[in-house]
Amino acid sequence: MARMFWIATLLVGLASTADAVKASAAHPLESLAVTASSLGQKALDDPACFALLESLTTEIGQRLAGTEAHKRAVAWAEAKLKAGGFENVHSEPFTLPAWIRGAESAEIVGPVPQHLAITALGGSVATDASGIEAEIALFRTYAELLAAPPGSLAGKIAVVTQRMVRTQDGSGYGAANPIRRSGPSEAARRGAVAYLLRSLGTDSHRLPHTGALNYNDGTSRIPAAALANPDADQLERLAALGSVRVRLLLTPTVHENAPSWNVVGEVKGAERPDEIVLIGGHLDSWDLGTGATDDGAGIAIAFGAARLIAGLPKRPSRTIRLVLFGAEEMDFSGAAYAKAHEGEFGKIVVAGEADFGARTVYSVQLPLGAADSDFGLTLGRIIAPLGANLDRRPALSSGEDIRELQKAGVPVVSVHQDGLDYFDAHHTADDTLDKIDPKQLDQAVAVWSVFTYLAAATDVDFRSLTANAK
Amino acid sequence: MARMFWIATLLVGLASTADAVKASAAHPLESLAVTASSLGQKALDDPACFALLESLTTEIGQRLAGTEAHKRAVAWAEAKLKAGGFENVHSEPFTLPAWIRGAESAEIVGPVPQHLAITALGGSVATDASGIEAEIALFRTYAELLAAPPGSLAGKIAVVTQRMVRTQDGSGYGAANPIRRSGPSEAARRGAVAYLLRSLGTDSHRLPHTGALNYNDGTSRIPAAALANPDADQLERLAALGSVRVRLLLTPTVHENAPSWNVVGEVKGAERPDEIVLIGGHLDSWDLGTGATDDGAGIAIAFGAARLIAGLPKRPSRTIRLVLFGAEEMDFSGAAYAKAHEGEFGKIVVAGEADFGARTVYSVQLPLGAADSDFGLTLGRIIAPLGANLDRRPALSSGEDIRELQKAGVPVVSVHQDGLDYFDAHHTADDTLDKIDPKQLDQAVAVWSVFTYLAAATDVDFRSLTANAK
Repeated sequence: MARMFWIATLLVGLASTADAVKASAAHPLESLAVTASSLGQKALDDPACFALLESLTTEIGQRLAGTEAHKRAVAWAEAKLKAGGFENVHSEPFTLPAWIRGAESAEIVGPVPQHLAITALGGSVATDASGIEAEIALFRTYAELLAAPPGSLAGKIAVVTQRMVRTQDGSGYGAANPIRRSGPSEAARRGAVAYLLRSLGTDSHRLPHTGALNYNDGTSRIPAAALANPDADQLERLAALGSVRVRLLLTPTVHENAPSWNVVGEVKGAERPDEIVLIGGHLDSWDLGTGATDDGAGIAIAFGAARLIAGLPKRPSRTIRLVLFGAEEMDFSGAAYAKAHEGEFGKIVVAGEADFGARTVYSVQLPLGAADSDFGLTLGRIIAPLGANLDRRPALSSGEDIRELQKAGVPVVSVHQDGLDYFDAHHTADDTLDKIDPKQLDQAVAVWSVFTYLAAATDVDFRSLTANAK
Repeated sequence: MARMFWIATLLVGLASTADAVKASAAHPLESLAVTASSLGQKALDDPACFALLESLTTEIGQRLAGTEAHKRAVAWAEAKLKAGGFENVHSEPFTLPAWIRGAESAEIVGPVPQHLAITALGGSVATDASGIEAEIALFRTYAELLAAPPGSLAGKIAVVTQRMVRTQDGSGYGAANPIRRSGPSEAARRGAVAYLLRSLGTDSHRLPHTGALNYNDGTSRIPAAALANPDADQLERLAALGSVRVRLLLTPTVHENAPSWNVVGEVKGAERPDEIVLIGGHLDSWDLGTGATDDGAGIAIAFGAARLIAGLPKRPSRTIRLVLFGAEEMDFSGAAYAKAHEGEFGKIVVAGEADFGARTVYSVQLPLGAADSDFGLTLGRIIAPLGANLDRRPALSSGEDIRELQKAGVPVVSVHQDGLDYFDAHHTADDTLDKIDPKQLDQAVAVWSVFTYLAAATDVDFRSLTANAK
């Protein structure tokens, strides 16, 4: 039904486009719009993207940065890029301190023994080999932990059970992120010997959500782990009844100077090949699932969009550069990419990363000043029949790997996918292929392909649109 | 809204009842029906049942039969029964070979290493301390395994990935049960060294479903475990690409002659105390979750129904006996109960076990011949405003713990709760309190309290109704 609706609406859209071409035959944007519309339509019926995601998650599985598994993923990606018709396929090396999960377990020791479902936060130090056992100090909000005086948590395991809010745009994750990122050091500063938080996740399963922490310099580094949501509930109920003792065992290790790579492939521009439209996703994943939504889906979307454009009879004017980043989860690949391409920032027309799952795109945000331009109006018209809006508010960010480019002045695009259930399986063992709806994935590819084609085929200059809007 | 609807409909029901009493004042069933209706209404607003379930799952947690945890649950139950106003509270001991889960893990060794989410089946033997590594032989249906010739699986790990069907009445579980119960011995008979099945579950989480197996005498006992649904999918995809090697480690142990107990409490009958209406649930649970739906909910429902009746100003004629069975998951407590009460079968008017979760009751089935009796017609009229039907088909079974009583001729009642999502968390780590909707639990208590009261307060004789119907 939805597909039929799209086709019908698209035909109306194409008719209007044809009228517009008649009315203003001199405007090259109109003929590009026809190509962009048909690209979007083709993406809706392209089984190749889901097949790519199936291959990655089945034949490689998890691919934590700095591990042999990620190395296999890099070889897989290079082969797929070459087979997909990309040019200049290569991998750009960098190193990182690779954090490798070890054994991990936790139990309520008293009032009665009970198993707790936990997982270490990425970057956590290990406990002693025999674990840490201590009474817990439970805070139902992060603000309550921050209000605790120095020394008040001495010898205790601090537990924060604040619940992440479910939102479509993922803002609930942003709001809760300090609980995971900064909580361990904030607890340590108050004397805690270990830190547990309610998973940053919106599900109710015994599958805890991992994710990176950031220790503050000058504060002792304490072991930190996430509780599955039902286990956080259980600690809340038990703590309301009296004292609770917990034992925590974590044995992660760090491999310094582990190798990783940003894998690159290009669709060389026909007229201005030195101008670059950079799109990507991240090839690394957490180790618990198979990284289907995070970020196999983003890889499939960016790859799929670029591959469809590579298959056109006429190449767009500018080069499309596809970057499959190699260590997003540990925050290393964006910085490595920016460092290696410092001299090139001015040539990057726009950059964007697909890193928000596999559901449909509901809106696109462009750099400031672009929404009302011919480019923005055309994009909005073409993605409307796909079920996506042009959001007139400017893009504030793209993925984590684009952050350094953005700081250096590169314009960014923000493509919003429906994130209502994104944080159900995010960073858990549950991030597997069965969670992906191929139809929704294809819609996301369609929107990305339309945007990417228009950005590469036109002479849109986001920097000057932004400058004029200021 | 639903509650308002129930109240409105109930008032209509009570008005009709009053008319019926006027029309036939001599019929004692009509005044009992008024009491039964008001009991049901009271159950809908009774927070005690959910509170009991919260206490059990929080303060005790998992309670695998034959363990210290189950022993704690027995003490908890006795205290709760005494506090709830039950009489003759006691625990009837029996022994069982208690199966205790050990370490358990599985990995795909090749084509590339990948973790598999598995859990040992209850009763499984252990692997060697270093595990078993072998190529898999994958069957997409159980029938294909059964069709494999003797010796054809020599040295292999047999894998059956047939998917359980989601149904409201749980019949999908019954249909798939032989894959878990008999699969290990069927695989061994064909030479397999270990056995994996797709979990008998309807979810898509990396939380495998445990459950008991039954080894056949005369066939070698091989280690057996359940794969989480996404892991079964993964093996299917990999097996389609080529040979797959898996390593399996299981180290369960068995404690022979471990103690367990069936905990009993009674509401003594006012006039015919030696006639017994037996209702119950099972206090033991699997060890992975906290046994909230299986069978904490059943305990809360049966306990709640009997406690409401115990609180009436006038006791019913017959005795209500509440039995909290002690080893249902391993199939021991029903037999132990029947053996200990052999001389008493003729005194048991009817028996029923609540062991199908915490959702609403949609129908009740009575012993053959009872649906059209005054008892059946009255029951049907009272449970209709609660949202439940009297199903005119006869009850074929009640819970596992009632099976031996039924074989000995005791009439049984079958109370059907909505089971569409029952097998999502069943026998997994996910069987926790957050999955319970208190409103639905209370509706189930309401229906059980109406049935139990009517059976104990009237002189219904199911045996003669059945004899007359044959």
